[in-house]
Amino acid sequence: MFSDLYNEGVQKIYLDYNATTPVRQEVLDAMLPYFKNFYGNPSSVHSLGQETRKVVEDAREKIAVLLGAEKPSEIVFTSCGTESNNYAIKGVAFALKNKGNHIITSKIEHHSVLEVCQYLEKKFDYRVTYLPVDKYGIVNPNDVEKSITDQTILISIMHINNEVGSIEPIEEIGKMTKEKGVIFHTDAVQSCGKIPLDVKNLGVNLLSLSGHKFYAPKGVGAVYIKEGTKLHPLLHGGAHEKNRRAGTENVAYIVGLAKALEIAHRDMDGESKRLLNLRQKLEDGIFEKIGSVQINGNPQKRVFNTSNISFNCVEGEGILMSLDIEGICASTGSACSSGTLEPSHVLSAMGIPPGISQGSVRFSLGHYTTEKDIDKLLAVLPKIIERLRAMSPLWNK
Amino acid sequence: MFSDLYNEGVQKIYLDYNATTPVRQEVLDAMLPYFKNFYGNPSSVHSLGQETRKVVEDAREKIAVLLGAEKPSEIVFTSCGTESNNYAIKGVAFALKNKGNHIITSKIEHHSVLEVCQYLEKKFDYRVTYLPVDKYGIVNPNDVEKSITDQTILISIMHINNEVGSIEPIEEIGKMTKEKGVIFHTDAVQSCGKIPLDVKNLGVNLLSLSGHKFYAPKGVGAVYIKEGTKLHPLLHGGAHEKNRRAGTENVAYIVGLAKALEIAHRDMDGESKRLLNLRQKLEDGIFEKIGSVQINGNPQKRVFNTSNISFNCVEGEGILMSLDIEGICASTGSACSSGTLEPSHVLSAMGIPPGISQGSVRFSLGHYTTEKDIDKLLAVLPKIIERLRAMSPLWNK
Repeated sequence: MFSDLYNEGVQKIYLDYNATTPVRQEVLDAMLPYFKNFYGNPSSVHSLGQETRKVVEDAREKIAVLLGAEKPSEIVFTSCGTESNNYAIKGVAFALKNKGNHIITSKIEHHSVLEVCQYLEKKFDYRVTYLPVDKYGIVNPNDVEKSITDQTILISIMHINNEVGSIEPIEEIGKMTKEKGVIFHTDAVQSCGKIPLDVKNLGVNLLSLSGHKFYAPKGVGAVYIKEGTKLHPLLHGGAHEKNRRAGTENVAYIVGLAKALEIAHRDMDGESKRLLNLRQKLEDGIFEKIGSVQINGNPQKRVFNTSNISFNCVEGEGILMSLDIEGICASTGSACSSGTLEPSHVLSAMGIPPGISQGSVRFSLGHYTTEKDIDKLLAVLPKIIERLRAMSPLWNK
Repeated sequence: MFSDLYNEGVQKIYLDYNATTPVRQEVLDAMLPYFKNFYGNPSSVHSLGQETRKVVEDAREKIAVLLGAEKPSEIVFTSCGTESNNYAIKGVAFALKNKGNHIITSKIEHHSVLEVCQYLEKKFDYRVTYLPVDKYGIVNPNDVEKSITDQTILISIMHINNEVGSIEPIEEIGKMTKEKGVIFHTDAVQSCGKIPLDVKNLGVNLLSLSGHKFYAPKGVGAVYIKEGTKLHPLLHGGAHEKNRRAGTENVAYIVGLAKALEIAHRDMDGESKRLLNLRQKLEDGIFEKIGSVQINGNPQKRVFNTSNISFNCVEGEGILMSLDIEGICASTGSACSSGTLEPSHVLSAMGIPPGISQGSVRFSLGHYTTEKDIDKLLAVLPKIIERLRAMSPLWNK
């Protein structure tokens, strides 16, 4: 049965890598010894515990080096990107509430940033500025600077937007926040593993990442916390992670996280070029074969694997369902808000009217994407759009 | 190399199952398809997402049935027992702060309860009553009742103590709190998978559990939340878990959690009898071969696998290190506070003087414990104690 399932799995054409990725074989191999064999609790003093303690600390060191951190202790493991974002933002907000109550973020952040900010506003009397973006989904560093008041305790701007792939000017904001002495957090969930990250160049105090966006499993993440940054723990309990994140360490996934990041960096150059070419083919093909389409996001400052395309006069959900029947998996935007009928908050912030944003589909490419996959997509998509448009009352037949 | 490591792992005699457990082969087998093959994000609308959505909901249903919950939606998946405890306690405290600010707990709770309570006291002006226990580590339900004021919003009493194995009178407290209309949480991390749990019989509104205490991996847990119980999320973001716990679901571990609980219930009768016999053999042997020892915890109301024994005039850490050299893994108490030189807060609350509690060792038995393991322990331990006592200035030579 297992091999049948396997075959069923691989027959799909998966173009939703920004939602999640499969675990790579090398990552799985690295993790396997830590389920049944090396199962000691890293907090145990006996040798089984010491073994896994070493494994966890080795993983921390690897990740610290890959991110350009000063020290391994600046890396704290979490259970996901959402936890990392919650920890960073609530942690700073609660720790600095005597200093100020103002947070600056943007309108295009992931829900795990926006919802945290809204919670702090509603329940704990913080004040949050949600900065606008330009038509490409880019935050203006001057807007950030102008919004800083003597009450500002935290700025949180994402590195790469998950829906459209726009790359935000983190370095510029980082330089400015350093001068102003305001703590700066970036949600790097979509950039980590795709482009090189250097926390010192980025100028951030806090950076969130999530394993399952770069071929580690779902259920592990980390936060970079620059030494000296004060924040309250989100999970209180034992003294794990130097009193910053209680809970027995997920040894296997921590090993997998480090391995996956290592592989991502090893393959980064080749993969980014390969996928950029495939995306170009995808976009060229769509423009050539289908009219009345637009690409959402910055033409230049856009991560190589992401293509968010609006098809006029059709519903994105309808396109997805039709693609799914053909064995092609894509998305209308964030998986975390899929199923809702609201237009994307990211596309809205970019000034894209609901009529157009509702016809948008996100194709996100990854390690197993091949030229054949793009050929198949380009073979079926024009017919799907044609059929849906033929049924649309909005389409000028 | 892998097989060498494997052999090294299994040669150990592991008597620290309360700290953590190895993942069982059946559990690992159940999880494996969800790393590389069925990797869809359960929030994705396409068929790869729908597949894993179903898998997650099936696991939720299984667990709900095994715990006697009314509905599957009363189960929320988390990343660990610590997260479950943090979520339950902070969640209720923040949600009901307009109703009251008083929390009742006990002095022998796990750190992931105690530290949360202390955080709420110190930083958010809650008032916490830490109830005493008797010399066996048992909370008196009358003490709970007498501590309730019109400000009391939450009572949190653990089900089975991790260090000494005492079983708390949860049903009695549950009945009383129901009458009084106060929300009742139990940390069932050490009971879940060992003894049958029925949330309705226990009379709890909230119950925490952790997978790695019953042969699922480290890094997954759950909270039972009785329908209608109001609490704030700990992790804000996407609409996962019906808006109660944001973050992409750890599909593989969720499957493993359900499988492990299923196996635990299947094998519970036989395992509990077998391990009770082995523990009896262990305790009889120690009493017979080593003088000046005492068992900590309730003689009757004590979970079958746990034996916390004080050896007069020696240091627990010294015993552990000597046992470790012999390939035997045990603990002085909670792994989460190991490495500290503080006497156990649990033994202190039971009125055991530091001089005695510092000579205590916790043996916790589990699935792979054999009679041969106990024989080996009984062969080496008397000599270890004799040697350590010979060096002790306190021992009356």
